[in-house]
Amino acid sequence: MSERRRGPWTIVSERLAYENPWVRLRHYEVRQPDGQASVYGVFEPHNLAIGIVPVFADGTIMLVGQHRFALDAWSWELPEGGGPRDVDPLLTARRELKEETGLTARRWAQIADYDVSNSVTTERAIGFIAWELEQGEPEREGSEADMQMRRVGLQQALAMAMSGEIRDGFTLTLLAAADHAARHGRLEPELAAAVLKPSAGEGV
Amino acid sequence: MSERRRGPWTIVSERLAYENPWVRLRHYEVRQPDGQASVYGVFEPHNLAIGIVPVFADGTIMLVGQHRFALDAWSWELPEGGGPRDVDPLLTARRELKEETGLTARRWAQIADYDVSNSVTTERAIGFIAWELEQGEPEREGSEADMQMRRVGLQQALAMAMSGEIRDGFTLTLLAAADHAARHGRLEPELAAAVLKPSAGEGV
Repeated sequence: MSERRRGPWTIVSERLAYENPWVRLRHYEVRQPDGQASVYGVFEPHNLAIGIVPVFADGTIMLVGQHRFALDAWSWELPEGGGPRDVDPLLTARRELKEETGLTARRWAQIADYDVSNSVTTERAIGFIAWELEQGEPEREGSEADMQMRRVGLQQALAMAMSGEIRDGFTLTLLAAADHAARHGRLEPELAAAVLKPSAGEGV
Repeated sequence: MSERRRGPWTIVSERLAYENPWVRLRHYEVRQPDGQASVYGVFEPHNLAIGIVPVFADGTIMLVGQHRFALDAWSWELPEGGGPRDVDPLLTARRELKEETGLTARRWAQIADYDVSNSVTTERAIGFIAWELEQGEPEREGSEADMQMRRVGLQQALAMAMSGEIRDGFTLTLLAAADHAARHGRLEPELAAAVLKPSAGEGV
Protein backbone atom coordinates (compact mmCIF):
# COMPACT_ATOMS: atom_id res chain seq x y z
CA MET A 1 0.00 0.00 0.00
CA SER A 2 1.28 3.45 -0.78
CA GLU A 3 1.71 6.04 1.96
CA ARG A 4 -1.16 8.38 2.59
CA ARG A 5 -1.72 11.45 4.69
CA ARG A 6 -4.14 11.87 7.57
CA GLY A 7 -3.88 15.54 8.55
CA PRO A 8 -0.25 16.02 9.68
CA TRP A 9 0.17 12.24 10.11
CA THR A 10 1.46 9.82 7.46
CA ILE A 11 0.16 6.25 7.32
CA VAL A 12 3.04 4.02 6.20
CA SER A 13 1.06 0.77 6.46
CA GLU A 14 -2.04 -0.62 8.13
CA ARG A 15 -3.46 -4.04 8.96
CA LEU A 16 -6.56 -5.46 10.64
CA ALA A 17 -5.17 -6.82 13.93
CA TYR A 18 -8.42 -8.11 15.47
CA GLU A 19 -12.11 -8.45 14.72
CA ASN A 20 -15.15 -9.99 16.36
CA PRO A 21 -18.87 -9.44 15.65
CA TRP A 22 -18.84 -6.13 17.61
CA VAL A 23 -15.40 -4.55 17.40
CA ARG A 24 -12.31 -4.23 15.23
CA LEU A 25 -8.75 -3.11 15.96
CA ARG A 26 -6.51 -1.66 13.25
CA HIS A 27 -2.74 -1.41 13.64
CA TYR A 28 -0.99 1.46 11.83
CA GLU A 29 2.66 2.17 11.20
CA VAL A 30 2.79 5.96 11.10
CA ARG A 31 4.99 9.02 10.96
CA GLN A 32 3.99 11.58 13.61
CA PRO A 33 3.45 15.29 12.90
CA ASP A 34 7.18 15.85 13.70
CA GLY A 35 8.21 13.15 11.19
CA GLN A 36 9.20 10.47 13.73
CA ALA A 37 8.18 6.83 13.17
CA SER A 38 5.58 5.42 15.55
CA VAL A 39 2.61 3.02 15.75
CA TYR A 40 -1.11 3.46 16.45
CA GLY A 41 -3.67 0.87 17.53
CA VAL A 42 -7.17 2.19 16.87
CA PHE A 43 -10.18 0.44 18.45
CA GLU A 44 -13.34 0.57 16.34
CA PRO A 45 -16.70 -0.54 17.76
CA HIS A 46 -18.96 -1.47 14.82
CA ASN A 47 -22.02 0.14 16.43
CA LEU A 48 -22.98 3.59 17.62
CA ALA A 49 -23.31 3.83 21.40
CA ILE A 50 -26.88 4.90 22.17
CA GLY A 51 -28.05 6.05 25.62
CA ILE A 52 -31.37 7.24 27.05
CA VAL A 53 -32.38 9.46 30.00
CA PRO A 54 -35.96 8.30 30.72
CA VAL A 55 -37.58 11.09 32.80
CA PHE A 56 -40.82 10.57 34.75
CA ALA A 57 -43.11 13.50 35.54
CA ASP A 58 -41.99 13.43 39.20
CA GLY A 59 -38.36 14.11 38.28
CA THR A 60 -37.16 10.55 38.74
CA ILE A 61 -35.36 8.53 36.08
CA MET A 62 -34.93 4.79 35.56
CA LEU A 63 -31.43 3.39 36.01
CA VAL A 64 -30.44 -0.17 35.15
CA GLY A 65 -27.78 -2.19 36.90
CA GLN A 66 -25.66 -5.02 35.56
CA HIS A 67 -22.29 -6.65 36.10
CA ARG A 68 -19.99 -5.16 33.45
CA PHE A 69 -17.68 -7.81 32.03
CA ALA A 70 -14.85 -5.49 30.90
CA LEU A 71 -14.45 -3.92 34.35
CA ASP A 72 -15.57 -6.93 36.43
CA ALA A 73 -17.81 -4.66 38.49
CA TRP A 74 -21.49 -3.99 39.13
CA SER A 75 -22.64 -0.79 37.46
CA TRP A 76 -25.75 1.38 37.89
CA GLU A 77 -26.22 3.36 34.67
CA LEU A 78 -28.70 4.70 32.15
CA PRO A 79 -30.20 2.33 29.57
CA GLU A 80 -27.49 2.04 26.90
CA GLY A 81 -26.84 -0.16 23.91
CA GLY A 82 -25.32 -0.45 20.47
CA GLY A 83 -27.00 0.33 17.17
CA PRO A 84 -25.87 -0.14 13.57
CA ARG A 85 -24.42 3.05 12.03
CA ASP A 86 -26.91 2.88 9.14
CA VAL A 87 -29.99 2.72 11.39
CA ASP A 88 -31.70 5.88 12.73
CA PRO A 89 -30.29 6.28 16.30
CA LEU A 90 -33.79 7.07 17.58
CA LEU A 91 -35.02 3.62 16.51
CA THR A 92 -32.16 2.02 18.43
CA ALA A 93 -32.95 4.20 21.45
CA ARG A 94 -36.63 3.13 21.44
CA ARG A 95 -35.62 -0.54 21.15
CA GLU A 96 -32.97 -0.40 23.90
CA LEU A 97 -35.25 1.44 26.32
CA LYS A 98 -38.03 -1.13 25.78
CA GLU A 99 -35.66 -4.14 25.96
CA GLU A 100 -33.84 -3.08 29.13
CA THR A 101 -36.62 -1.41 31.15
CA GLY A 102 -39.97 -2.22 29.49
CA LEU A 103 -40.56 1.53 29.12
CA THR A 104 -41.99 3.21 26.04
CA ALA A 105 -41.91 7.01 25.66
CA ARG A 106 -44.23 9.26 23.69
CA ARG A 107 -41.72 12.12 23.49
CA TRP A 108 -38.04 12.06 22.51
CA ALA A 109 -35.28 14.66 21.98
CA GLN A 110 -31.61 14.20 21.15
CA ILE A 111 -29.34 15.81 23.76
CA ALA A 112 -25.80 14.60 22.92
CA ASP A 113 -23.57 13.45 20.04
CA TYR A 114 -19.88 13.11 20.84
CA ASP A 115 -16.65 11.14 20.40
CA VAL A 116 -16.14 8.92 23.43
CA SER A 117 -12.34 8.70 23.61
CA ASN A 118 -10.70 10.36 20.64
CA SER A 119 -7.10 9.41 21.29
CA VAL A 120 -7.51 5.68 20.71
CA THR A 121 -11.03 4.83 19.50
CA THR A 122 -13.58 5.80 16.86
CA GLU A 123 -16.49 5.22 19.27
CA ARG A 124 -19.34 7.69 18.77
CA ALA A 125 -22.11 8.19 21.33
CA ILE A 126 -25.58 9.64 20.78
CA GLY A 127 -27.92 10.37 23.66
CA PHE A 128 -31.63 11.10 24.03
CA ILE A 129 -34.02 12.33 26.69
CA ALA A 130 -37.33 10.43 26.71
CA TRP A 131 -40.50 11.42 28.58
CA GLU A 132 -44.25 10.73 28.80
CA LEU A 133 -43.29 7.19 29.80
CA GLU A 134 -45.41 4.05 30.00
CA GLN A 135 -44.29 0.94 31.87
CA GLY A 136 -44.39 -2.46 30.13
CA GLU A 137 -42.35 -5.66 30.38
CA PRO A 138 -38.58 -5.75 29.62
CA GLU A 139 -37.37 -8.01 26.78
CA ARG A 140 -33.74 -8.45 27.76
CA GLU A 141 -30.94 -10.11 25.79
CA GLY A 142 -29.16 -13.11 27.29
CA SER A 143 -26.13 -10.97 28.11
CA GLU A 144 -28.41 -8.86 30.31
CA ALA A 145 -29.99 -11.69 32.32
CA ASP A 146 -28.69 -10.21 35.61
CA MET A 147 -30.07 -6.71 34.93
CA GLN A 148 -31.97 -4.83 37.65
CA MET A 149 -33.87 -1.52 37.70
CA ARG A 150 -33.79 1.39 40.15
CA ARG A 151 -35.71 4.67 40.07
CA VAL A 152 -33.94 7.75 41.48
CA GLY A 153 -34.22 11.52 41.13
CA LEU A 154 -32.34 12.86 38.11
CA GLN A 155 -30.53 15.46 40.22
CA GLN A 156 -29.64 12.76 42.75
CA ALA A 157 -28.31 10.49 39.98
CA LEU A 158 -26.30 13.42 38.58
CA ALA A 159 -24.77 14.05 42.01
CA MET A 160 -23.98 10.32 42.30
CA ALA A 161 -22.23 10.44 38.90
CA MET A 162 -20.29 13.59 39.79
CA SER A 163 -19.13 12.06 43.08
CA GLY A 164 -17.99 8.81 41.43
CA GLU A 165 -20.72 6.67 43.03
CA ILE A 166 -21.98 6.09 39.48
CA ARG A 167 -18.81 5.50 37.44
CA ASP A 168 -20.13 5.12 33.87
CA GLY A 169 -18.97 8.03 31.70
CA PHE A 170 -21.89 7.82 29.24
CA THR A 171 -24.36 8.10 32.15
CA LEU A 172 -22.46 11.06 33.62
CA THR A 173 -22.39 12.87 30.28
CA LEU A 174 -26.08 12.32 29.46
CA LEU A 175 -27.30 13.38 32.91
CA ALA A 176 -25.18 16.54 32.64
CA ALA A 177 -26.52 17.16 29.12
CA ALA A 178 -30.15 16.83 30.29
CA ASP A 179 -29.45 19.20 33.20
CA HIS A 180 -27.69 21.73 30.93
CA ALA A 181 -30.51 21.60 28.36
CA ALA A 182 -33.11 22.20 31.11
CA ARG A 183 -31.20 25.12 32.62
CA HIS A 184 -30.64 26.78 29.24
CA GLY A 185 -34.20 26.73 27.95
CA ARG A 186 -33.77 23.92 25.45
CA LEU A 187 -36.49 21.69 27.00
CA GLU A 188 -40.20 22.41 27.27
CA PRO A 189 -41.07 23.97 30.66
CA GLU A 190 -42.82 20.96 32.22
CA LEU A 191 -39.97 18.59 31.33
CA ALA A 192 -37.35 21.14 32.42
CA ALA A 193 -39.09 21.46 35.79
CA ALA A 194 -38.99 17.68 36.26
CA VAL A 195 -35.30 17.51 35.28
CA LEU A 196 -34.36 20.32 37.70
CA LYS A 197 -36.54 19.18 40.62
CA PRO A 198 -34.15 19.20 43.60
CA SER A 199 -36.18 17.06 45.98
CA ALA A 200 -36.88 13.94 43.92
CA GLY A 201 -35.24 11.25 46.02
CA GLU A 202 -34.90 7.48 45.96
CA GLY A 203 -37.98 5.84 44.44
CA VAL A 204 -38.75 2.12 43.95
CA MET B 1 -6.63 -22.60 31.74
CA SER B 2 -9.53 -23.57 33.96
CA GLU B 3 -12.83 -21.73 33.76
CA ARG B 4 -13.37 -18.84 36.13
CA ARG B 5 -16.27 -16.61 37.09
CA ARG B 6 -16.55 -12.88 36.59
CA GLY B 7 -19.83 -11.90 38.27
CA PRO B 8 -22.55 -13.80 36.35
CA TRP B 9 -20.15 -14.36 33.41
CA THR B 10 -17.88 -17.39 32.95
CA ILE B 11 -14.50 -17.03 31.23
CA VAL B 12 -13.87 -20.22 29.25
CA SER B 13 -10.54 -19.03 27.80
CA GLU B 14 -8.63 -15.83 27.16
CA ARG B 15 -5.70 -14.73 25.00
CA LEU B 16 -3.76 -11.52 24.35
CA ALA B 17 -4.89 -10.59 20.81
CA TYR B 18 -2.91 -7.35 20.39
CA GLU B 19 -0.41 -5.16 22.21
CA ASN B 20 1.62 -2.04 21.46
CA PRO B 21 3.41 0.33 23.87
CA TRP B 22 0.11 2.07 24.79
CA VAL B 23 -2.75 -0.41 24.49
CA ARG B 24 -3.66 -4.08 24.75
CA LEU B 25 -6.64 -6.08 23.52
CA ARG B 26 -7.72 -9.32 25.19
CA HIS B 27 -10.03 -11.82 23.51
CA TYR B 28 -12.28 -13.90 25.76
CA GLU B 29 -14.43 -16.94 25.07
CA VAL B 30 -17.27 -16.56 27.57
CA ARG B 31 -20.61 -17.83 28.74
CA GLN B 32 -23.13 -15.01 29.18
CA PRO B 33 -25.28 -14.56 32.30
CA ASP B 34 -27.96 -16.71 30.58
CA GLY B 35 -25.41 -19.49 29.92
CA GLN B 36 -25.06 -18.93 26.15
CA ALA B 37 -21.59 -19.06 24.55
CA SER B 38 -20.21 -15.76 23.25
CA VAL B 39 -16.98 -13.77 22.81
CA TYR B 40 -15.68 -10.49 24.25
CA GLY B 41 -12.89 -8.24 22.97
CA VAL B 42 -11.76 -5.89 25.74
CA PHE B 43 -9.59 -2.88 24.91
CA GLU B 44 -7.15 -1.89 27.64
CA PRO B 45 -5.20 1.36 27.45
CA HIS B 46 -2.09 0.97 29.64
CA ASN B 47 -2.39 4.52 30.98
CA LEU B 48 -4.95 6.51 32.92
CA ALA B 49 -6.57 9.27 30.86
CA ILE B 50 -5.83 12.57 32.62
CA GLY B 51 -7.54 15.86 31.73
CA ILE B 52 -7.33 19.42 33.05
CA VAL B 53 -9.72 22.41 33.08
CA PRO B 54 -7.31 25.37 33.40
CA VAL B 55 -9.42 28.34 34.62
CA PHE B 56 -8.19 31.95 34.43
CA ALA B 57 -9.51 34.58 36.86
CA ASP B 58 -11.59 36.16 34.05
CA GLY B 59 -13.58 32.94 33.51
CA THR B 60 -11.76 31.85 30.38
CA ILE B 61 -10.06 28.49 29.97
CA MET B 62 -7.29 27.30 27.65
CA LEU B 63 -8.25 24.81 24.95
CA VAL B 64 -5.76 23.02 22.73
CA GLY B 65 -6.39 21.91 19.18
CA GLN B 66 -4.81 19.06 17.26
CA HIS B 67 -5.58 16.68 14.42
CA ARG B 68 -6.75 13.46 16.08
CA PHE B 69 -5.37 10.43 14.22
CA ALA B 70 -8.08 7.92 15.24
CA LEU B 71 -10.92 10.10 13.94
CA ASP B 72 -9.00 11.87 11.15
CA ALA B 73 -10.39 15.22 12.30
CA TRP B 74 -9.25 18.46 13.92
CA SER B 75 -10.33 18.65 17.57
CA TRP B 76 -10.52 21.55 20.06
CA GLU B 77 -10.37 20.07 23.54
CA LEU B 78 -9.01 20.42 27.05
CA PRO B 79 -5.37 19.51 27.73
CA GLU B 80 -5.42 15.71 28.06
CA GLY B 81 -2.86 12.96 28.20
CA GLY B 82 -1.95 9.55 29.51
CA GLY B 83 -0.25 8.74 32.78
CA PRO B 84 1.04 5.45 34.24
CA ARG B 85 -1.40 3.83 36.67
CA ASP B 86 1.23 3.75 39.43
CA VAL B 87 1.97 7.50 39.23
CA ASP B 88 -0.04 10.11 41.19
CA PRO B 89 -2.58 11.45 38.64
CA LEU B 90 -1.91 15.00 39.84
CA LEU B 91 1.75 14.72 38.78
CA THR B 92 0.63 13.62 35.30
CA ALA B 93 -1.87 16.49 35.18
CA ARG B 94 0.84 19.07 36.06
CA ARG B 95 3.17 17.62 33.42
CA GLU B 96 0.50 17.46 30.67
CA LEU B 97 -0.70 21.01 31.33
CA LYS B 98 2.86 22.36 31.16
CA GLU B 99 3.79 20.30 28.08
CA GLU B 100 0.72 21.17 26.03
CA THR B 101 0.06 24.79 27.05
CA GLY B 102 3.10 26.07 28.97
CA LEU B 103 0.78 26.81 31.91
CA THR B 104 1.59 26.08 35.53
CA ALA B 105 -1.10 26.31 38.22
CA ARG B 106 -0.73 27.05 41.94
CA ARG B 107 -4.07 25.45 42.85
CA TRP B 108 -5.52 22.08 41.87
CA ALA B 109 -8.63 20.04 42.73
CA GLN B 110 -9.86 16.70 41.38
CA ILE B 111 -13.34 16.96 39.83
CA ALA B 112 -13.91 13.62 38.05
CA ASP B 113 -12.98 9.92 38.15
CA TYR B 114 -14.98 7.66 35.84
CA ASP B 115 -15.00 4.69 33.46
CA VAL B 116 -14.92 6.00 29.89
CA SER B 117 -16.81 3.27 28.01
CA ASN B 118 -17.61 0.35 30.25
CA SER B 119 -19.06 -2.05 27.68
CA VAL B 120 -15.82 -2.65 25.78
CA THR B 121 -12.85 -0.95 27.47
CA THR B 122 -11.12 -0.65 30.84
CA GLU B 123 -10.22 3.00 30.19
CA ARG B 124 -10.37 5.14 33.35
CA ALA B 125 -10.38 8.94 33.26
CA ILE B 126 -9.43 11.35 36.05
CA GLY B 127 -9.99 15.10 35.73
CA PHE B 128 -8.77 18.19 37.55
CA ILE B 129 -9.57 21.86 37.73
CA ALA B 130 -6.46 24.06 37.88
CA TRP B 131 -6.36 27.78 38.72
CA GLU B 132 -4.01 30.62 39.71
CA LEU B 133 -2.30 30.06 36.37
CA GLU B 134 1.05 31.32 35.09
CA GLN B 135 1.98 31.27 31.40
CA GLY B 136 5.30 29.74 30.29
CA GLU B 137 6.50 27.93 27.18
CA PRO B 138 4.94 24.64 26.00
CA GLU B 139 7.20 21.58 25.74
CA ARG B 140 5.22 19.44 23.31
CA GLU B 141 5.85 15.84 22.26
CA GLY B 142 6.52 15.08 18.60
CA SER B 143 3.00 13.68 18.19
CA GLU B 144 1.68 17.12 19.18
CA ALA B 145 3.75 19.23 16.76
CA ASP B 146 0.58 20.61 15.13
CA MET B 147 -1.01 21.69 18.43
CA GLN B 148 -2.58 25.14 18.76
CA MET B 149 -4.08 27.04 21.73
CA ARG B 150 -7.31 28.99 22.07
CA ARG B 151 -8.70 30.84 25.09
CA VAL B 152 -12.51 30.87 25.47
CA GLY B 153 -15.03 31.39 28.27
CA LEU B 154 -15.71 28.20 30.25
CA GLN B 155 -19.47 28.62 29.85
CA GLN B 156 -19.00 29.22 26.13
CA ALA B 157 -16.83 26.10 25.80
CA LEU B 158 -19.45 24.09 27.74
CA ALA B 159 -22.17 25.32 25.36
CA MET B 160 -19.93 24.38 22.39
CA ALA B 161 -19.49 20.87 23.84
CA MET B 162 -23.22 20.46 24.54
CA SER B 163 -24.07 21.54 20.97
CA GLY B 164 -21.53 19.18 19.38
CA GLU B 165 -19.22 21.95 18.16
CA ILE B 166 -16.62 20.46 20.52
CA ARG B 167 -16.97 16.67 20.08
CA ASP B 168 -14.49 15.27 22.61
CA GLY B 169 -16.33 13.41 25.37
CA PHE B 170 -13.60 13.92 28.00
CA THR B 171 -13.77 17.69 27.43
CA LEU B 172 -17.58 17.66 27.65
CA THR B 173 -17.53 15.68 30.89
CA LEU B 174 -14.87 17.79 32.61
CA LEU B 175 -16.48 21.12 31.67
CA ALA B 176 -19.81 19.81 33.01
CA ALA B 177 -18.08 18.60 36.18
CA ALA B 178 -16.45 22.01 36.78
CA ASP B 179 -19.81 23.73 36.21
CA HIS B 180 -21.62 21.30 38.54
CA ALA B 181 -18.98 21.69 41.27
CA ALA B 182 -19.23 25.50 41.05
CA ARG B 183 -23.05 25.50 41.22
CA HIS B 184 -23.13 23.09 44.17
CA GLY B 185 -20.69 24.87 46.47
CA ARG B 186 -17.75 22.52 45.99
CA LEU B 187 -15.35 25.23 44.73
CA GLU B 188 -14.07 28.26 46.61
CA PRO B 189 -16.24 31.35 45.90
CA GLU B 190 -13.77 33.25 43.67
CA LEU B 191 -13.11 30.21 41.47
CA ALA B 192 -16.82 29.34 41.34
CA ALA B 193 -17.60 32.89 40.20
CA ALA B 194 -15.05 32.59 37.37
CA VAL B 195 -16.42 29.18 36.30
CA LEU B 196 -20.00 30.47 36.24
CA LYS B 197 -19.27 33.86 34.58
CA PRO B 198 -21.79 34.04 31.74
CA SER B 199 -20.16 36.82 29.72
CA ALA B 200 -16.62 35.52 29.23
CA GLY B 201 -16.38 35.33 25.47
CA GLU B 202 -13.76 34.49 22.86
CA GLY B 203 -10.29 35.54 23.98
CA VAL B 204 -6.97 35.17 22.11
